[in-house]
Amino acid sequence: MSDAVVLLSGGLDSATALAIARGLGLTPHALSFRYGQRHAGEIEAARAVARQQGVEHHTIVDIDLAMFGKSALTAALPVPKDGAGLVPGEIPITYVPARNTIFLSYALALAEVVGARDIVIGVNAVDYSGYPDCRPEYIAAFQQMANLATKAAVEGSLTTIHTPLIWLSKADIIRRGLSLEVDYSVTRSCYDPDVEGRACGRCDACRLRLAGFAAVGIPDPAPYQPR
Amino acid sequence: MSDAVVLLSGGLDSATALAIARGLGLTPHALSFRYGQRHAGEIEAARAVARQQGVEHHTIVDIDLAMFGKSALTAALPVPKDGAGLVPGEIPITYVPARNTIFLSYALALAEVVGARDIVIGVNAVDYSGYPDCRPEYIAAFQQMANLATKAAVEGSLTTIHTPLIWLSKADIIRRGLSLEVDYSVTRSCYDPDVEGRACGRCDACRLRLAGFAAVGIPDPAPYQPR
Repeated sequence: MSDAVVLLSGGLDSATALAIARGLGLTPHALSFRYGQRHAGEIEAARAVARQQGVEHHTIVDIDLAMFGKSALTAALPVPKDGAGLVPGEIPITYVPARNTIFLSYALALAEVVGARDIVIGVNAVDYSGYPDCRPEYIAAFQQMANLATKAAVEGSLTTIHTPLIWLSKADIIRRGLSLEVDYSVTRSCYDPDVEGRACGRCDACRLRLAGFAAVGIPDPAPYQPR
Repeated sequence: MSDAVVLLSGGLDSATALAIARGLGLTPHALSFRYGQRHAGEIEAARAVARQQGVEHHTIVDIDLAMFGKSALTAALPVPKDGAGLVPGEIPITYVPARNTIFLSYALALAEVVGARDIVIGVNAVDYSGYPDCRPEYIAAFQQMANLATKAAVEGSLTTIHTPLIWLSKADIIRRGLSLEVDYSVTRSCYDPDVEGRACGRCDACRLRLAGFAAVGIPDPAPYQPR
């Protein structure tokens, strides 16, 4: 068994990426971040996903991204609903500056410490929000940098960043996850849940997720606020 | 005046890099990290350097690298003295996994938030400890990744990472800093200072620093423990 660091947000995508990594026979070291996000229920969802999938190693890192402001996910800005604020070709306000770069940097450090050569991240370039740090060319550049950054790399243990979802539609991600027995009822994708953790059903993340389940032809088992 | 994020550890190198950035007419946003290092006096030194150089913006970020263990700088491992443990071609135990990658990732986020296109880091590839994330090829790869990572980059505001010290000897770094009126008495380089913040004079960082001052022919104004 080989070790892999798996970034786990508690959302639908990362839960599926984790299941794929396990299906490949990798021993996952799940890594989650409490980064001042409004939707702090993410961490509880990440814990539940890790539990459901029998993950033995789960690291939760506290980082202060809220200080960097400027995102509707960390600052007191309204989360766009029903597609409002979405302009084709433009990056939405829910973008968090350099978030995946910071997350992958911690993943690289953890990988070096636990002796993992593989990092798994559930980014997607099909049904996604247009964030630049979800694109394959970004991931490739990060991997190149990573393999110049560490003592492990210098000593010959190169890092591979796996993006098993990158070319899948949201519906195909769900189909793949169901075939691996992912329990999507414990995952949370919403950018603006209520105090009970129920999804709004109207933010970009909910819209992508609901469209995915609709395309598969099954209901989303996660809880939603009454409309 | 253009804004630049300057990584500031409080050591000799970063104090000089800051002075060079100021000399270029850049408005510095100094960025320091409290990362569980044994030599926590670094933060006080960084504050003193920022004060001495009239820096208006100084951000100190708390990050938990100590959890990643495995370095003599963050874990309860002895700091090598008098060149012990140094093997030519090997990376010393004071290496911290992915440290510069994490630091530069935060710098990238801060640069995007404050609208800075420039990041300054005082890495050096001449009189240095052999850390892989101080090499020019690493910095180049980070810059390439950075310019695929952010909304700012996608919108045309590319990031340049400046390494003004990279090809300077320690002595030339000191000469350059003195010409820019850097007060080296407030900088701290030691990996293992005593409780009064006095340098040990024997760790790798002290040895490189003392050799640099010796080559310039002046005494190091920073405080040292009695031998």
